[in-house]
Amino acid sequence: MGPILQLRHHAAHSSLLFLLPLRDFTPSLSVARAHRYGSPSDYKSAVQELRSLFSEENDTLTIDPEELLLHGGSTWTHLASQPPSVVVFPSNQSDVEKILEISRKYRVPVVPYGAGSAVEGQFNAPYGGICIDLQRHMNKIIKINSADGDCVVQPGISYQELNDELARLGHKLFLPLDPGPGATIGGMISTGCSGTNTVRYGTARAEWFLNLTAVLPSGQVLKTRSRARKSSAGPDLTKVFIGAEGTLGVITEVAVRLAPLLPTRVGMVGFPGVKQAVEAVVEILGEGVVDTIFFKFQGSDVLIAESAKTVETIIKRHGGDALQLATTEKESELLWGARRGALFASMAASGYETPMIYGNDICVPVSRLPDFISECKSLLYEAGVYAPFLGHVGDGNIHMNVVLRDRSELPKMHGLMKKFIWKAIEMEGTCTGEHGVGANKKEYLTTELGVGTISLLRTIKNAIDPLGLMNPGKLYPDELPPLAPFPDPSQRTGELYAPAAGCSC
Amino acid sequence: MGPILQLRHHAAHSSLLFLLPLRDFTPSLSVARAHRYGSPSDYKSAVQELRSLFSEENDTLTIDPEELLLHGGSTWTHLASQPPSVVVFPSNQSDVEKILEISRKYRVPVVPYGAGSAVEGQFNAPYGGICIDLQRHMNKIIKINSADGDCVVQPGISYQELNDELARLGHKLFLPLDPGPGATIGGMISTGCSGTNTVRYGTARAEWFLNLTAVLPSGQVLKTRSRARKSSAGPDLTKVFIGAEGTLGVITEVAVRLAPLLPTRVGMVGFPGVKQAVEAVVEILGEGVVDTIFFKFQGSDVLIAESAKTVETIIKRHGGDALQLATTEKESELLWGARRGALFASMAASGYETPMIYGNDICVPVSRLPDFISECKSLLYEAGVYAPFLGHVGDGNIHMNVVLRDRSELPKMHGLMKKFIWKAIEMEGTCTGEHGVGANKKEYLTTELGVGTISLLRTIKNAIDPLGLMNPGKLYPDELPPLAPFPDPSQRTGELYAPAAGCSC
Repeated sequence: MGPILQLRHHAAHSSLLFLLPLRDFTPSLSVARAHRYGSPSDYKSAVQELRSLFSEENDTLTIDPEELLLHGGSTWTHLASQPPSVVVFPSNQSDVEKILEISRKYRVPVVPYGAGSAVEGQFNAPYGGICIDLQRHMNKIIKINSADGDCVVQPGISYQELNDELARLGHKLFLPLDPGPGATIGGMISTGCSGTNTVRYGTARAEWFLNLTAVLPSGQVLKTRSRARKSSAGPDLTKVFIGAEGTLGVITEVAVRLAPLLPTRVGMVGFPGVKQAVEAVVEILGEGVVDTIFFKFQGSDVLIAESAKTVETIIKRHGGDALQLATTEKESELLWGARRGALFASMAASGYETPMIYGNDICVPVSRLPDFISECKSLLYEAGVYAPFLGHVGDGNIHMNVVLRDRSELPKMHGLMKKFIWKAIEMEGTCTGEHGVGANKKEYLTTELGVGTISLLRTIKNAIDPLGLMNPGKLYPDELPPLAPFPDPSQRTGELYAPAAGCSC
Repeated sequence: MGPILQLRHHAAHSSLLFLLPLRDFTPSLSVARAHRYGSPSDYKSAVQELRSLFSEENDTLTIDPEELLLHGGSTWTHLASQPPSVVVFPSNQSDVEKILEISRKYRVPVVPYGAGSAVEGQFNAPYGGICIDLQRHMNKIIKINSADGDCVVQPGISYQELNDELARLGHKLFLPLDPGPGATIGGMISTGCSGTNTVRYGTARAEWFLNLTAVLPSGQVLKTRSRARKSSAGPDLTKVFIGAEGTLGVITEVAVRLAPLLPTRVGMVGFPGVKQAVEAVVEILGEGVVDTIFFKFQGSDVLIAESAKTVETIIKRHGGDALQLATTEKESELLWGARRGALFASMAASGYETPMIYGNDICVPVSRLPDFISECKSLLYEAGVYAPFLGHVGDGNIHMNVVLRDRSELPKMHGLMKKFIWKAIEMEGTCTGEHGVGANKKEYLTTELGVGTISLLRTIKNAIDPLGLMNPGKLYPDELPPLAPFPDPSQRTGELYAPAAGCSC
């Protein structure tokens, strides 16, 4: 289920808005049942040993209760926090290895932490343990390989910091993945992120991450592959870490592919209805020229004009308004700001005194989007709630931002949102297009991905992390079915048989 | 090591060219040592049982020695074949499940087979067993979802058949991955393929395969995920099968994402040297407009003219010739034909009577390409061989097509090529950019990917296929290091400990 977002007016800064996930966080105990973590005195010893290596004085460790609370839940909430026992701020891979050694020694779980912007309970610490904050000190660019169009970074740098630094140094390159503001490279990998640039550039699952280095809970270090742009050398294990939500190891270094930075203009267009809008987008995508229904055009002036012309022809045919095209990058920024501010605008437009947003991030195949939206709208209308929708039409991704009067409407919404997700899965869609599974969407995963896929995910998890030390309680459904058993190989008595040229039969 | 290609002049059809991998294929026995396959009578029983389900009469099974030979090695060779005991041609997933059940029952290995165009021994059958030919009957398009820009296919269809059928039905969509002619979707996934469209569209590891269904050797069926364009629901296990070379299971269905089919023009330009060519390409890629040094321009006439202008400005600055730009699609076809025929042209140009091509498919980061090529050229010059190079400059991918006078030059070349590959790996490159590992490149994998990655690959392989039934002898290095061991969890006596709000320490 999606997070609950609440609009808060602060007395002193009435312009400050906080998004507050308010839903109660109910941790699963199944992982704890399956694994025996250390005793309270083990936890104590682990913290003691960590303090012999890291310390408050040099800003590499904290047990400050406020910091623990902040690290145990989204910085946008105070209710759902499940704090760790200690936060450590490593500076390099060797530090991470030492932390994981202590985690193993005392059976104390570990939660990797990036920007703290995940919204599905991904970095809550339901069993306490060690939070590894990678943003404070492991946020460096290690090398920029401009001619190769790539760079090597630590996981704690945000894509915005990276792009700013590339611009400052005069490289005409950028990482086009653009999830929530502040997101770190490690978090983007772990969530399998996407954003408003996805139609053109793909998601985190495409080829933006050339390789990564991770420390496994066993202490083993692996670098998934070389820095070559392409390779046919076996399965790319980088991909196993993409979307793994920190459950397999701690990422310590990443080679990131970059795209050429192109001039960009934004355009906007209104339609009489969702159906017409989706049909227009499907046809526009077929021309291979542009990005979203808030259109981002990229390239030289001539290329932009040409693309805009194509889009205009198509949207007119589908009953769209005239295309409002920004003429400068500054105007583009302003127009795009309207898209960015849409969530807050929705809350303001509701007229409610303390409006709350109950959001989600469902995806369905693009062709099903009009049906899906229309069915959900009817249900929401019946429920009598105000619910502006925001979406990435090109990806079939919709955010249903239900604005609630107050918390009393919550239980009704829980049930309704569940219905929406099950409907999306029925339509070959997904319970999460962007936010990830975390602790909140595990219940949908077995149906969405199937028992076979869940079994294989579980097998990989168990092989890498037999003690369940890495970010327990997240991602994997509580009842984990095993891979189908093989007949016992030892029962076979057959001799080694390797015919040189086929079988004699 | 790359395949050996030989030019053959047939008496009757002097225009017919065959590419012949002539290097001796030395199968590793390590897999056989680790696993006990069935006895000769087990193999016999397996074939018997298969014949009760499949038969020569309805074209679903063969034990014809000629067919076995053809299925045990590239169709471009007669020397390296290691034939299976039987070839089965399943028609659907249920057939595949039955075949794998028999494989399990009698401990007879299985080799999936697509177009038979792999060049590294990927579908040789060093232990005999069952070849599953997916191309003959499992080559259907199941559904075209035009509005979603995707389709669902069986693995035995080739990308060319798929694209032809999409064109015939009037869909302005295509799959832009373009490896060797004839390649099937299943083979393209299993090799982690790429091709001349890679700079623009990425490789098989990008987001072209939305999901796949596979039968595991245990009989368990998994569908990796939904048909949504994007999802953050955990790691995408589709990717684990990409590049797995048929060692994890048999793919039975694939959801393929399609791209809009755009008007295309081809342009060509010569440079005084490799260095200038690479520098020009790096700068051109930075503008984000085009594809390769044989340039493919896509889009409307205006877009093509604009892109070509940008390219011309840059290549002039780097000393390139004038850009030869085709003015029609037909001219483009002709010009592109020159690229396609370059390998044969090299053989002809050598003037040797029975020239042999000794090729490879090394990749290095683009910036290292001039150094790499220059070092390799010197070594080849010293060796006194004629060696035109062909490459995908934008990917840092180079094919060194050494033209040998005859087989006597082979041993010298083996040593030289090994040197090239080790040099590439030293430069953060890869032993294979396109062809895959198969039986021939296993020796480089542990160094290129590292012990940690190989261990994890092995762990996944062993979990899915503990009896080593799937395509044995391929991909995994012979000496497989295990994942670092964990201390024994049973030694812990600690109580379950799940602090609600941090540790008391």
